[in-house]
Amino acid sequence: MSLKLRKAIKTDMESVLILIKELATFEKEPDAVEVTVDELIKDGFGENPAFEVFVAELDNEIVGMALFYQRYSTWKGKTIHLEDLIVKQSHRGKGIGNALYTKTLKHAYDLGVKRVEWAVLDWNTIAIDFYKSTGATLFNDWRVVQMEGNALKQFIQELQIDY
Amino acid sequence: MSLKLRKAIKTDMESVLILIKELATFEKEPDAVEVTVDELIKDGFGENPAFEVFVAELDNEIVGMALFYQRYSTWKGKTIHLEDLIVKQSHRGKGIGNALYTKTLKHAYDLGVKRVEWAVLDWNTIAIDFYKSTGATLFNDWRVVQMEGNALKQFIQELQIDY
Repeated sequence: MSLKLRKAIKTDMESVLILIKELATFEKEPDAVEVTVDELIKDGFGENPAFEVFVAELDNEIVGMALFYQRYSTWKGKTIHLEDLIVKQSHRGKGIGNALYTKTLKHAYDLGVKRVEWAVLDWNTIAIDFYKSTGATLFNDWRVVQMEGNALKQFIQELQIDY
Repeated sequence: MSLKLRKAIKTDMESVLILIKELATFEKEPDAVEVTVDELIKDGFGENPAFEVFVAELDNEIVGMALFYQRYSTWKGKTIHLEDLIVKQSHRGKGIGNALYTKTLKHAYDLGVKRVEWAVLDWNTIAIDFYKSTGATLFNDWRVVQMEGNALKQFIQELQIDY
């Protein structure tokens, strides 16, 4: 097999969205993906791109991707957040995920960031064991909180004071 | 009392760092803060600032702050991440945290982002109850994973393949 890792370009976003949807299904949220190909192109390739992507090409087919962006730790400084690491189901077990993970960490290291971070579902023990084996630390005491668009709208509309 | 909320400027970063260190102590990690005033100024006020801050001024003293930045959800699109929401211990219970929280959510709403998210420690039940009361959702199944600078360096130096 001929595996090639490279930075994604605009025309890869259709394949990238297919991978995003595959991961959402794996994470038991198949209908959660609202993003479109046009939005991925606009958000990822304009001025101040909101993210960057490495894609894995196997015999000229995109079979995996790592999507990441910069975050900021008020303790450490600039960090890289790995938002999605995805390998097509039919191509797992070939080391492609490992290669994408390593390429992203290498990129972060070259940028000189103080930390790379990501999130994992607590039942995904295969991923957790893999991350730990590479030197990453799992935190059990932090919880993610989100206010979605509709809840945000309602919260704002019910405000009595203007901020 | 005269409470004023405004965007932070460079000269606020000394007060901001004091607040960051106060939060680290509350979170039982008093020695974790490596960031300096100079780094906060460089990272927050250059080209492509890594974060933005609202500060709360009470009688011309900075007594609280909300620090946030943009993230990206591959399901929803652009989001805002609230990294730190801090009120000086001696000024809690006056609604300052609520005001900073609301101002940040209003800002996110005005930007049109699809979600605001943040993290909370699982033992901080007062904060959790407050967030839920405003319409936010707590996720119990996601875990944070981090690879710190030293672990990252070791991982990269032990690589057998060049990525």
